[in-house]
Amino acid sequence: MTGSDRSAAPAGVVELRSDTFTLPTPRMLEEMTRAPLGDDVYGEDPTARELEELAAELLGMEDACFMPSGTMGNLAAILAHCPRGTKALAGAESDIYVYEAGGASYCGGVIVEPVRNAADGTLAIADIEAAFPEDYEDPQFALPALLCLENPQNRCGGRVLPLEYLAAVRDLARARGIAVHLDGARIFNAALVTGVPVRVIAGYADSVQFCLSKGLSAPAGSMVAGSAEFIRSVRRIRKMLGGGMRQVGVLAAAGLVALRDMTARLGDDHARARRLAERLAGLPGVVVEPVETNMVFFRVEAPHVSQSRFIERAWDEGVRLAELGRGRIRAVTHAGVTDSDVDRALSVFHDILTPAPLLASAHVD
Amino acid sequence: MTGSDRSAAPAGVVELRSDTFTLPTPRMLEEMTRAPLGDDVYGEDPTARELEELAAELLGMEDACFMPSGTMGNLAAILAHCPRGTKALAGAESDIYVYEAGGASYCGGVIVEPVRNAADGTLAIADIEAAFPEDYEDPQFALPALLCLENPQNRCGGRVLPLEYLAAVRDLARARGIAVHLDGARIFNAALVTGVPVRVIAGYADSVQFCLSKGLSAPAGSMVAGSAEFIRSVRRIRKMLGGGMRQVGVLAAAGLVALRDMTARLGDDHARARRLAERLAGLPGVVVEPVETNMVFFRVEAPHVSQSRFIERAWDEGVRLAELGRGRIRAVTHAGVTDSDVDRALSVFHDILTPAPLLASAHVD
Amino acid sequence: MTGSDRSAAPAGVVELRSDTFTLPTPRMLEEMTRAPLGDDVYGEDPTARELEELAAELLGMEDACFMPSGTMGNLAAILAHCPRGTKALAGAESDIYVYEAGGASYCGGVIVEPVRNAADGTLAIADIEAAFPEDYEDPQFALPALLCLENPQNRCGGRVLPLEYLAAVRDLARARGIAVHLDGARIFNAALVTGVPVRVIAGYADSVQFCLSKGLSAPAGSMVAGSAEFIRSVRRIRKMLGGGMRQVGVLAAAGLVALRDMTARLGDDHARARRLAERLAGLPGVVVEPVETNMVFFRVEAPHVSQSRFIERAWDEGVRLAELGRGRIRAVTHAGVTDSDVDRALSVFHDILTPAPLLASAHVD
Amino acid sequence: MTGSDRSAAPAGVVELRSDTFTLPTPRMLEEMTRAPLGDDVYGEDPTARELEELAAELLGMEDACFMPSGTMGNLAAILAHCPRGTKALAGAESDIYVYEAGGASYCGGVIVEPVRNAADGTLAIADIEAAFPEDYEDPQFALPALLCLENPQNRCGGRVLPLEYLAAVRDLARARGIAVHLDGARIFNAALVTGVPVRVIAGYADSVQFCLSKGLSAPAGSMVAGSAEFIRSVRRIRKMLGGGMRQVGVLAAAGLVALRDMTARLGDDHARARRLAERLAGLPGVVVEPVETNMVFFRVEAPHVSQSRFIERAWDEGVRLAELGRGRIRAVTHAGVTDSDVDRALSVFHDILTPAPLLASAHVD
Repeated sequence: MTGSDRSAAPAGVVELRSDTFTLPTPRMLEEMTRAPLGDDVYGEDPTARELEELAAELLGMEDACFMPSGTMGNLAAILAHCPRGTKALAGAESDIYVYEAGGASYCGGVIVEPVRNAADGTLAIADIEAAFPEDYEDPQFALPALLCLENPQNRCGGRVLPLEYLAAVRDLARARGIAVHLDGARIFNAALVTGVPVRVIAGYADSVQFCLSKGLSAPAGSMVAGSAEFIRSVRRIRKMLGGGMRQVGVLAAAGLVALRDMTARLGDDHARARRLAERLAGLPGVVVEPVETNMVFFRVEAPHVSQSRFIERAWDEGVRLAELGRGRIRAVTHAGVTDSDVDRALSVFHDILTPAPLLASAHVD
Repeated sequence: MTGSDRSAAPAGVVELRSDTFTLPTPRMLEEMTRAPLGDDVYGEDPTARELEELAAELLGMEDACFMPSGTMGNLAAILAHCPRGTKALAGAESDIYVYEAGGASYCGGVIVEPVRNAADGTLAIADIEAAFPEDYEDPQFALPALLCLENPQNRCGGRVLPLEYLAAVRDLARARGIAVHLDGARIFNAALVTGVPVRVIAGYADSVQFCLSKGLSAPAGSMVAGSAEFIRSVRRIRKMLGGGMRQVGVLAAAGLVALRDMTARLGDDHARARRLAERLAGLPGVVVEPVETNMVFFRVEAPHVSQSRFIERAWDEGVRLAELGRGRIRAVTHAGVTDSDVDRALSVFHDILTPAPLLASAHVD
Repeated sequence: MTGSDRSAAPAGVVELRSDTFTLPTPRMLEEMTRAPLGDDVYGEDPTARELEELAAELLGMEDACFMPSGTMGNLAAILAHCPRGTKALAGAESDIYVYEAGGASYCGGVIVEPVRNAADGTLAIADIEAAFPEDYEDPQFALPALLCLENPQNRCGGRVLPLEYLAAVRDLARARGIAVHLDGARIFNAALVTGVPVRVIAGYADSVQFCLSKGLSAPAGSMVAGSAEFIRSVRRIRKMLGGGMRQVGVLAAAGLVALRDMTARLGDDHARARRLAERLAGLPGVVVEPVETNMVFFRVEAPHVSQSRFIERAWDEGVRLAELGRGRIRAVTHAGVTDSDVDRALSVFHDILTPAPLLASAHVD
Repeated sequence: MTGSDRSAAPAGVVELRSDTFTLPTPRMLEEMTRAPLGDDVYGEDPTARELEELAAELLGMEDACFMPSGTMGNLAAILAHCPRGTKALAGAESDIYVYEAGGASYCGGVIVEPVRNAADGTLAIADIEAAFPEDYEDPQFALPALLCLENPQNRCGGRVLPLEYLAAVRDLARARGIAVHLDGARIFNAALVTGVPVRVIAGYADSVQFCLSKGLSAPAGSMVAGSAEFIRSVRRIRKMLGGGMRQVGVLAAAGLVALRDMTARLGDDHARARRLAERLAGLPGVVVEPVETNMVFFRVEAPHVSQSRFIERAWDEGVRLAELGRGRIRAVTHAGVTDSDVDRALSVFHDILTPAPLLASAHVD
């Protein structure tokens, strides 16, 4: 058994909406009750500190900081990088731009400027260049201070950014004098696909945020890593935002298990996602996007069932899916989804998409 | 003579960079020295008040407020409409999005979300709709509170938005419960093209900003108009931003002349712009965009002279042009540009674009 | 046994710096591993919901929301109450003003205006009145939107605000049309002293924040309670700030134990604080402030030992104290401090303050 | 005649509410119509530039920038000095704290922390020191980045800060690594009293704002001066706030006259203020504060007429006064107030304060 012994979902339910539904593993729960604790607002929680040091080491950064969520991790990073009134460039399909509720504008007067994502998740270098004004002295233009990448790129199908692309973006950023922040919420999935340790991917960025929940199954928490000075800023911002927690070692203990035990199993999720995609592609009226990580994006273009009806009927049969912007359905594999769950989901999808023999025969006589 | 008796530019210079270079007319200068004055921060400047009442009346709004600039007019309007953390939708090519330095994000935590402008300046209704989240309760999405239109749409060639389009946007906004702000910096130019009084155009919006400088030739100042309650908010925000000025009647006096005497002459600018465009189109290597108001956008795609070199050479010959984003040149007619100025500019352009007979004559003999 | 079976501090250490050092109880840890969980960002964590409903019920409010910290609880409440540019009045000695890093100004453009705290923690009604401008139309004055009280008032010695005072403030706020937010981080301590259920105290406020950590011993988390509409705003702001956590039921489970089991024992802390204060008052060179809850504030004015040296020497002897602004020492009792810990602390204090007989005995013989 | 030939007030009215009521002089109006103009947003207004250079030279600073108001001058200066989330310390009685509508918090997430003003306008060095946290690493404290002084200190009676005090504050600021901004709205009045050129006073600050309106009689505008780099930031912020104006030379022309012709006559205002104060002190029921510049603060504590009734009756007799916080009346002398105006005001005050012989005799018979 690779995942949790309790399903995130009610018995019999296949939860494909997101890997954020993963439940803590028994080992996590055990560690949560055993970890040494202290008041982390005073910097005295040894388990939180242990997690921060492990995260920094894995990412090859000077320091790291625990965050209650990836949203706060990204927000604090943007605020630490961007003086008031500057621009943070981010993919128009990035979670930072689409989902994070405008936090950097709200809290920090940062302009988050969307740059078009190609289908493979990349932002064209020329489009990034176009966000820089020709005349830096002209006060009518806000100046870029940061470029945010997301890897894997969730809304682009969980696509993984190639290392050469990361290098090209880093070079552009250095030449322009701006920083690169990587929203690596699922960076371990990206590293698996790229075939390198996460530190190699992180090495192209000035700061990285990644999640302990999602595929790694911790109940909550994210890490932000970067230079020692950057993390000092991030800690100050975290306190201001209200992300300083007391005996946070209870969460950090689960995070340590996530980093030590749970990254190795992500290949299972990827394999299941590929199998789900391949079989889905064989169903009538289904258009599946390329799969690289643990996400399957597809459209239902069936004559007799609308996409929203498809999702409803699947839900009624115990298979949970999410519609995710621009008319696509997303199915995500994770520690709470087994091979037989995938089979069951496919069987449900098949039944919905394959019209019953219409009872027409019943009327024959 | 319709315009100023002193050119905005040095003698012999044809200033086509912008209509913001217009100089106050003699009548404006005379009124500036005669207008009754008071301390407008105490609400006691009678000339400022007279201008505000005239502006409100012309636009068919309950009240209006003098602003030191159009930038502050738009900023205060956005801040008055948008609670912290909400979205203001604006054209990706709008002055608000491109030029105004992110003020609404900087000062107010407003997310200014760009919506693609079509070539004619409109934002597709479907694209506007797409900026509204399906689930308003979902806290991960910032909620729209305002839609900003620009009419005429400067960076789309000074194009004028049709009344039916304004009506469709207003209907959408009402159905969605958001306000419409019109950046009508050059609304009198739009009204002239549309063939209606400005109040008809303003009638489709909840608030309007227009400039007394630009085509109307006042030295400085803009007006924001809207409901009495809205203007009360705008005044409060103006004070906070530092836009409250003491004996501002000296500027308002020029603004009164602008509104009373200078709108009738805009047709001359439009005619000159059309003539400039028609003749430009006949020059080799010039691609001209459609002209509706006082702006001519064109590209130079000549084999022997780059666009930036074209601008430099024209400048050296006393004809001033601006490159305006995305590789286009803008030439703007205004009260400081006469028929003979247009002729001279065309002559200069012709000489630059028509390669001299290669010193052939010099080689003779 | 009322408290934890593991001390928050290393063996032999008496931790008096703060009740934030309390460790989760065995029952909390057990519940954390058993609680049903879900993704709370989707609103599907049953334990978090159970805690929110219990908190709302205890406080007599329509709804409540879990927060990672009291800082975020206060920040989100202020942001929900205060439109951009308005004033939140708060005690000059309040934690909101002194410690919370200017978050409401930083994130929300709220002016937090300090009002003098009297020695008993109250803000004089006349001083509150003075923060309202005479002329609400005058745009040069920011307008109050909120008054924040703190009860008990930490930096005023943990003093408890009388109900009549709360009523007077509520009446003023209603008359003025502003809201009252209660920073009730330790509201259960206040309720115990006042001799009423917490809902009576909460009844004088529009919103309340209280902590599950501190005296109640949960590892982390605070609750904000108020009207259903207010809590809807707070949830939206929480997501933006990054306070939305996934399987947050692991923390909520401890919070449920805190609310069910841990409030009854606060009387022990108060008794120990009183005993500590009484005995301290008998030591030479110690000036003790009145004690009402679990905090003892005192000054050391001894001829032979400075206050900072006193703290250092106590620390070396295993008794931890904090200097808390304006030259006072704070000692806080909590579930990790037993009667014998109090005795030991007093013995250490005695030894430091009572000069040894000067090695006289050593000189004997 | 030193001032304007038209009174700021209706004929027969003595306007003592503020020196902001001064009207432009005939010479100003003449220069406004003659000054060479250009588009200052493009940096091409020669008159604005001339004024900026003159201001910088007078203040001994590298550069200066024209602002539509003193409010924007102070706001832009604070924003340029203070990163998001830092503290600007300012007198609790300073115009920045009391009147400027919280702009720095609103727009920039700056915490403006009030420090008590002594009666002479100074902030005690110890109180300034107390605003610095002991532990700069502790993220719960916002860090100071700026100290704002006001000289003369309006609400402290227009008192002038001694040079030794300015030196002590500058030394503290340097030792602490923060900047000093001087709100020198009436710095020429302060320089006159101190007996030094304004550059000596300005030399103790990193940036200075002063007003061209007020005592110097220009219709509008203020200057901010500082280092070249600081002014570059200020210009960027000015554009964002909407303070960039087109042919602003029309106002700058008046500003040049203000700086060249109007500073020498401030001694007349001071003499009139002293005379007004001396004579007021002899009236029954009047308590007058010390006068140093052009402001007279007094209280009316007469048995038969309340202070607000006193102001009303004076207004009815054509003498305008303002109540200015904390129960004091302010009378300000300026270019629109002549010796005979002072006499008339005193006569009116005398009549109000000296009860008529009660018409008792009229009832006799």
